[in-house]
Amino acid sequence: MERGLGSKLDELIASSFKDHLTKPPLAGIKDLSILSSGGTMSNSKTTDKVQEARESNQVRYSHLVLTSHPGQIRHKTTPLSWGAKSPSERGPVVATLTNPDHRNAIGTHSGSYTVYRALATAAGFLPAEHRPDLTNTAPAESIGPHTSWWAAGRSEASGSHKIVSLDPWGAVVADVFKDYFKQGYDIRPSIAVTKAHISMFELNDAVAKGRLKVDGNIILESLDVTVSKAAVDPVWYLPGVAERFGITEGELRKAMFHETGGMFPELITRPDLKVFLPPIGSTSVYLFGDVTKLGKPGVEHTVRVHDECNGSDVFGSDICTCRPYLVHGIEEAIKTAQKGGIGAIVYYRKEGRALGEVTKFLVYNARKRQQGGDSAATYFHRTECVAGVQDMRFQELMPDVLHWLGIKRIDRLVSMSDMKYNAITGSGIEVGERVSIPDDMIPKDARVEMEAKKAAGYFTKDQILDEKGLEKVKGRALDE
Amino acid sequence: MERGLGSKLDELIASSFKDHLTKPPLAGIKDLSILSSGGTMSNSKTTDKVQEARESNQVRYSHLVLTSHPGQIRHKTTPLSWGAKSPSERGPVVATLTNPDHRNAIGTHSGSYTVYRALATAAGFLPAEHRPDLTNTAPAESIGPHTSWWAAGRSEASGSHKIVSLDPWGAVVADVFKDYFKQGYDIRPSIAVTKAHISMFELNDAVAKGRLKVDGNIILESLDVTVSKAAVDPVWYLPGVAERFGITEGELRKAMFHETGGMFPELITRPDLKVFLPPIGSTSVYLFGDVTKLGKPGVEHTVRVHDECNGSDVFGSDICTCRPYLVHGIEEAIKTAQKGGIGAIVYYRKEGRALGEVTKFLVYNARKRQQGGDSAATYFHRTECVAGVQDMRFQELMPDVLHWLGIKRIDRLVSMSDMKYNAITGSGIEVGERVSIPDDMIPKDARVEMEAKKAAGYFTKDQILDEKGLEKVKGRALDE
Repeated sequence: MERGLGSKLDELIASSFKDHLTKPPLAGIKDLSILSSGGTMSNSKTTDKVQEARESNQVRYSHLVLTSHPGQIRHKTTPLSWGAKSPSERGPVVATLTNPDHRNAIGTHSGSYTVYRALATAAGFLPAEHRPDLTNTAPAESIGPHTSWWAAGRSEASGSHKIVSLDPWGAVVADVFKDYFKQGYDIRPSIAVTKAHISMFELNDAVAKGRLKVDGNIILESLDVTVSKAAVDPVWYLPGVAERFGITEGELRKAMFHETGGMFPELITRPDLKVFLPPIGSTSVYLFGDVTKLGKPGVEHTVRVHDECNGSDVFGSDICTCRPYLVHGIEEAIKTAQKGGIGAIVYYRKEGRALGEVTKFLVYNARKRQQGGDSAATYFHRTECVAGVQDMRFQELMPDVLHWLGIKRIDRLVSMSDMKYNAITGSGIEVGERVSIPDDMIPKDARVEMEAKKAAGYFTKDQILDEKGLEKVKGRALDE
Repeated sequence: MERGLGSKLDELIASSFKDHLTKPPLAGIKDLSILSSGGTMSNSKTTDKVQEARESNQVRYSHLVLTSHPGQIRHKTTPLSWGAKSPSERGPVVATLTNPDHRNAIGTHSGSYTVYRALATAAGFLPAEHRPDLTNTAPAESIGPHTSWWAAGRSEASGSHKIVSLDPWGAVVADVFKDYFKQGYDIRPSIAVTKAHISMFELNDAVAKGRLKVDGNIILESLDVTVSKAAVDPVWYLPGVAERFGITEGELRKAMFHETGGMFPELITRPDLKVFLPPIGSTSVYLFGDVTKLGKPGVEHTVRVHDECNGSDVFGSDICTCRPYLVHGIEEAIKTAQKGGIGAIVYYRKEGRALGEVTKFLVYNARKRQQGGDSAATYFHRTECVAGVQDMRFQELMPDVLHWLGIKRIDRLVSMSDMKYNAITGSGIEVGERVSIPDDMIPKDARVEMEAKKAAGYFTKDQILDEKGLEKVKGRALDE
């Protein structure tokens, strides 16, 4: 069916643009001085290597074709069957620029860091044709394959696919797509798995206070904690993402194109390309305990799904509970691992409820300056006034990482968020207990957020405040 | 001159595409089922409000025009004169989608979070026409204007402009562009400034050990530390960015378009638009002490410029010195503020040397598995094998935030990086002392990185190891 659409589109465009096809869109532009490829500016620091790369890049860019040029629809692509069980049937996601005929995705690798790679190439520090040497980079721990990786694992409640926003084979491309590599395909890992030791003052304190114990395996004598960890880049299967949000693929493509200010016209011109690598941050996974036990029945699983908050996670801002709750999640994950279970912390780059930090700080100011002061009663309203929504994190795609890990049951979910709980259980993962943040870990100024969230549906065993009660929960003013 | 180019391009394109201009590029596509705007999918959870927004968005997207459609070049834009002294002469950066004729930038707001905003609009949670209510959001501390904000402050060494990657007026748009707001312009702040209290276990420990002292102003009795902080979104003036890298604007535009997989054809089709809001992370600034003293002669300034490292900054990974050095920077910033000076920590979202965390973890595996084990002698080489470059952070744009703050002299620079030092001094900021990380704060496994960097030019008072010495500095293996 996708083939059919593709060629129908091809014909339609060919007939609409037959004159255009003989004239590449940039034909008229290349004489303009601003886009001419002649000579880079002199720079006394320029090395021979940099100069060489710049010259080779100039050749590369002398035949630029706009992605919206309809002629491009005639490119071949590498077949891709999302949700197929075997990697050979599924096919690799090819988002590199080495061979345009191989590409079967919109966008390219490294999320938002694609912009820095472009800068590196522009400046001549990175030859455009560089291919990574993947020697010794294979995952340090083997994860999957799990049945959730293919569509046979589908659950009606969550749409057709359990995974639509990452490539479950992304960590093992060098292994499962060996034959493609032999044929010269340039395929990049979109997931990396490594091992590490971590050390946190809060965990040392937990050991000192007897909440955590040195066991020589998870917590070492040095107080270092052993972890396996993964970084996961976004790889969106557009029909699946649209399904999660209950909209059509066309609506998703059009909004994604228009509301970003026209990013990637291929979202519109290439309905045959079903996969999109958006320029957003990656997701980090920290695993405590024996990774081979992931998803096994009878093995206790403790999980925290945590959305980035730089102000608290790194700098310890007291307006929210982010870092304290993260640390509590790590403590609980360690305890579970020490009992022979698995602990997992998943860290999503969704700064300021995915509104970004500028909007977050604008909201802080509006909260703390409003008439009557910062209050739990008006907590959500102030965000909505500035941002248009209370929250832009959309937990619909969040459980994908858990399905990549093969998790089927979370015995202890370290989160009070009803949105996260609903997304996880809605995706077919069972949840046992929900673990609140201990009361003594909540910073005083974060009471406003906590009470407002509990009143709005956050999980709690405490009594929920009514309107009058919420009005009484006050935060600090800006000048305090 | 920019006008001239614009209309020359307009004529050229008009003559190349005269047939095209009467046929919008999507004319042929709109009948295709995949892009048809008819009816969103049913979703039992859909509220009336969401349904209403979806319907209004459908109308909005029924007249989509590809950004590469040459007809678009005929749009009016809001005049913008980068580097002009007065805001009225400079003009506002308009990157919102409310009125296409007002736009004078490529891309839109919130960096990479534009993708989440598009998702929110697609799903119907955010009406496309939402405008922020900016009541009470104005900066909590006044920063600038400083002479570095306009081109009169230019320094030959650093190119024509001291600031090319952020909008110095971005925090005060509601104030300085009042008249535009009255005329219905939709201008968004690209900077927000607020105040906060922070609390870190490491700082509490420093107080307990007597390195830091409670003063009731910077460090309160509760051990909370008072800060002013800012979030700064990227706003790139393309001719200035190109100049920093010693390349032409055309080279920058072409590479930026091509190497991102075709993001924003307007980089190519709209040479008249000089400003680009790239989908990358924002920069966070933490200020300690009296902000009104920023940049004043005779006031001591202590600064750390820190590049994001989630693994260490948040989780305390021991393979690098990132969090320990950040904490040391905060300690030094606090001490300076307590003596009546100013401390500043600038936090750049450049995860894994701007290569992203997937590449970073691939490199960790390659380092720890190579023959002979992880060693300071091969530290940079392994990154280059995988990524094609040793580092993609490019400090060329980094000092812009310091110029926004009005900093002219850094008495104590808490960084050993020669690249950062060169970029800062090259931009015309004087640097007094360079402050190394105290030896006892370096995790054992991070010795590999530290010795490799010192041998490659990092600032140090210690002896630099030769090849043989570097080979002896070994890190842990993956399975240890």
